[in-house]
Amino acid sequence: MRMDRKGKKKDGWIYGRRPVLETLRAGRREIHELIVPSGPATDEVEEMISIAHARRIPVRAAQRGECDRLLGQINHQCCAVRVGGYPYVSVEEIYEAAEEDPEAIVLILDHLEDPQNVGSLLRTAEACGVCGVIIPEDRGVLVTSAVVRASVGASEHLRIAHVVNLTQAMKGLQERNVWLTGLDLTEDAKPYTEIDFRGRCGIVVGNEGDGLGHLVGKTCDFIGLIPMAGQVASLNAAVAGAVTLFEAVRQKAAAGKR
Amino acid sequence: MRMDRKGKKKDGWIYGRRPVLETLRAGRREIHELIVPSGPATDEVEEMISIAHARRIPVRAAQRGECDRLLGQINHQCCAVRVGGYPYVSVEEIYEAAEEDPEAIVLILDHLEDPQNVGSLLRTAEACGVCGVIIPEDRGVLVTSAVVRASVGASEHLRIAHVVNLTQAMKGLQERNVWLTGLDLTEDAKPYTEIDFRGRCGIVVGNEGDGLGHLVGKTCDFIGLIPMAGQVASLNAAVAGAVTLFEAVRQKAAAGKR
Repeated sequence: MRMDRKGKKKDGWIYGRRPVLETLRAGRREIHELIVPSGPATDEVEEMISIAHARRIPVRAAQRGECDRLLGQINHQCCAVRVGGYPYVSVEEIYEAAEEDPEAIVLILDHLEDPQNVGSLLRTAEACGVCGVIIPEDRGVLVTSAVVRASVGASEHLRIAHVVNLTQAMKGLQERNVWLTGLDLTEDAKPYTEIDFRGRCGIVVGNEGDGLGHLVGKTCDFIGLIPMAGQVASLNAAVAGAVTLFEAVRQKAAAGKR
Repeated sequence: MRMDRKGKKKDGWIYGRRPVLETLRAGRREIHELIVPSGPATDEVEEMISIAHARRIPVRAAQRGECDRLLGQINHQCCAVRVGGYPYVSVEEIYEAAEEDPEAIVLILDHLEDPQNVGSLLRTAEACGVCGVIIPEDRGVLVTSAVVRASVGASEHLRIAHVVNLTQAMKGLQERNVWLTGLDLTEDAKPYTEIDFRGRCGIVVGNEGDGLGHLVGKTCDFIGLIPMAGQVASLNAAVAGAVTLFEAVRQKAAAGKR
């Protein structure tokens, strides 16, 4: 029932009203079965059923207990789809999308470990209209069911590529005039608001504990930090990424580019 | 073992390395007992023990299994303190702090339900140097152990007041020249980047599902929205709050005020 680490080989379940609806709307995955709550259908459930009918996907109405047995006692809201693996794109597809948009934003996740953080960043990235997300495949989280859930299904609308060599993918972006900013607290970091995000840009978020990998940090064009007050002075990786993504959007909008 | 909803009457446990260390550092709670992992002490644990000795707090070294029995199988990292209730301040103390700082930021949480979101917002607020946080006490989450944990202990350094009547507290802020911006997607909302956060400001974050309460929204001076691209176009409440808090900090810094 669980998807494998790469979310590719095994079938799995996506659960929860919003994630299920967005998976159906996006229409990019193989879908083998839709489970909806028994009883009167809400507008959301009606939309799910109507998409399923149009695509000849079997629909089953289930009670809470049945869903618990199938999915475990998670917050499934009696909505689930049994799906094929996540439809990753090639990194070349992200390069092409970036070349087409002079104000493209690319998000790069450097070995994040927490599915909640990855999902949160995907949700934010989708709301920012990023042209793609690049994830390394050697360690860290890929697009699992938990990530889809935490992204409230935003993952399904994004171009996400997983790559063997993250710095090589970053260099591929740089060759296409995508300027890369890594978030870190190193000495050469400057306030993120002083970095110019106009034009094509990429934002690199590091691991929750260790920050950016050494080579990844060295490959970035800029290192940005979010100035902090207070005693604890630490930000969650997903929050730091979100603040920087929206600063990029703000700068582009202020320049009349978005 | 659990704290009551207001975190006031019963003793409870705060767990996890960072939350425990910040609770000890802040020194604002009654602390009855410190539990640290048995075995060689890290720098963090040594700091915990040294603060505990100075304050005559009993220290106990424990194995993982013992902590599991005491705290449940949560991610306690074998660090815990048994504490008195959260040291809430009066709303008047927040008013006074806001009067003293011409660039004060106040965070107001309108009936958030998810302890993760509340904790995340407290962590971000502390990193932004807010002068206080106001929470209504009738429904929604107060500062429980789970919230302290999700804030990585930032809660312990903040002024947090719980109030019976949120709109009355908001009016009290307005009388002290704190301009209030609520985040919502209503028709009269304008892009958050077009709102002037210089001077004293308050940011009001609404409930995860329902947004701002009707009266709370009407009491705000401005309603701000975060413009979104994409298909799903939704932001987590903690992310939306963080993006707005840091926009306020950015505007103040750009004006040379912080």
